[in-house]
Amino acid sequence: MNTTLHCIPCFVRQTLDASRKVANDPAVHEQIMREVLRWMSDMDMSLSPPALAQRIHRRLRELTGVADPYREEKDLHNQMALKLLPELRAQVAASNDPLMTAAHLAIAGNIIDLGPKSGLDENEIHDALRHASEKPLEGDLIAFRAEVAQAKTILYLADNCGEIVFDTLLIEQLGPERVTLAVRGMPIINDATLEDAVTAGLDKMVPMIGNGSDAPGTILDDCNEEFRQAFESADLIISKGQGNFETLSPCGKNIFYLLKVKCPVVSESVCLPVGTHVLCHGRNFS
Amino acid sequence: MNTTLHCIPCFVRQTLDASRKVANDPAVHEQIMREVLRWMSDMDMSLSPPALAQRIHRRLRELTGVADPYREEKDLHNQMALKLLPELRAQVAASNDPLMTAAHLAIAGNIIDLGPKSGLDENEIHDALRHASEKPLEGDLIAFRAEVAQAKTILYLADNCGEIVFDTLLIEQLGPERVTLAVRGMPIINDATLEDAVTAGLDKMVPMIGNGSDAPGTILDDCNEEFRQAFESADLIISKGQGNFETLSPCGKNIFYLLKVKCPVVSESVCLPVGTHVLCHGRNFS
Repeated sequence: MNTTLHCIPCFVRQTLDASRKVANDPAVHEQIMREVLRWMSDMDMSLSPPALAQRIHRRLRELTGVADPYREEKDLHNQMALKLLPELRAQVAASNDPLMTAAHLAIAGNIIDLGPKSGLDENEIHDALRHASEKPLEGDLIAFRAEVAQAKTILYLADNCGEIVFDTLLIEQLGPERVTLAVRGMPIINDATLEDAVTAGLDKMVPMIGNGSDAPGTILDDCNEEFRQAFESADLIISKGQGNFETLSPCGKNIFYLLKVKCPVVSESVCLPVGTHVLCHGRNFS
Repeated sequence: MNTTLHCIPCFVRQTLDASRKVANDPAVHEQIMREVLRWMSDMDMSLSPPALAQRIHRRLRELTGVADPYREEKDLHNQMALKLLPELRAQVAASNDPLMTAAHLAIAGNIIDLGPKSGLDENEIHDALRHASEKPLEGDLIAFRAEVAQAKTILYLADNCGEIVFDTLLIEQLGPERVTLAVRGMPIINDATLEDAVTAGLDKMVPMIGNGSDAPGTILDDCNEEFRQAFESADLIISKGQGNFETLSPCGKNIFYLLKVKCPVVSESVCLPVGTHVLCHGRNFS
């Protein structure tokens, strides 16, 4: 997905939010704001939004010397999610349609995203998860069920911390024996890395790959060989969140995007309103 | 008032909104966005926000060849305000404190501002005016009454179209014989010019000055001699709206700022929440 003019005000706001989160020095805030404004003034709009976010956050880490500025919030979100997990697992077990219930919870967990939104409290997360099933789930549900039934190998692309804990519910329903989990290769915003997958207990369930990249999405050229091979060979790919959608659509693979629509640009791309829980096949975006 | 880092995301959004309002060609939107991002990357933060807005809107007029892109909305707001005027004039006449009621209505009329906000409908304007007196009016009310009682000459700095119609209520209470009205010298966003003052009927009440500038505020160095003399010699200045506040505080004059707080930066400066109706003396900001 290309960057649009509508992405620009949002990026400028995100840059200011992020700089204030990772540094106390107003001189650092001003320096990064000026640099980002300059980059954006001659940016290549054919790059995806996460490619620019990657560049901004790299520079912020360089300016502050802090390698993982969102670590504290990431731990908090993981712990909040782990606390909710038993109740949600019981909800899946009691469901008439555990696969779809688990998919819906995994999508509702995508509310935990510090890219588009500056802050998020525990109540918002609890409410989103507890009331997930009351919201409609839009997209290619029948095709999803059919592809899941057939696939021998499934590559699962995680998105954020906290959210990755709820992904365990869907991975349990998919059958962990055929699933490989991929996470970001390095810290970027609040995206999950191998450390978070371990916190979620996924190391005991499935093989795991760090994709080698510090983009808040999946920029294939920026990923390592191990990830690219897994991506190439999987029968089915399950991709969580906007960042993966923005970087992968269209990629021509047998891929389902599971996400909560969080901005007007993605909303226009999926033809569904902001806030919608979406599970749709990649063929819609080719 | 200086520009702050918080003004920048808002400016970028305003630039995109304005470019889409005044031009249909996406190439124009992209060109102005890239130019504004470049200007902002090395902007002088000691300039006031309206100084940058002036530059942006000048360039938009240059790119589109449209001298007064907000003309249609300005006419609409004037007409909407004129329709409401008799009912509000009756409210002032029936009030125990007609001066403060009129001041409050003039401040409530400051909701009509297309700078901070992209769109505004008739219901919002009607509600804001009809329920103005239910909101508290914060600031130096006693000092205002005292200064108004004493002043021999009052310079009244108008702000936006529509709003200027409600200013007639306050000017009637101040006593038109000692009031001079000043408006922008040229079209800028939806700010009132002489044409709008005539539409509001003010030409029949008071002497009027176009300030010679196309800034959405009062940048004294950019104003003509006639305005500067009136500004220098008035016993009392009444300044409407954020743009005038942002460009004039601190100016060391006997000035009252009458405005609705519309953004977090002005909110911080006046130490009152966004949405507050404010009437405060300039000495608070020296």
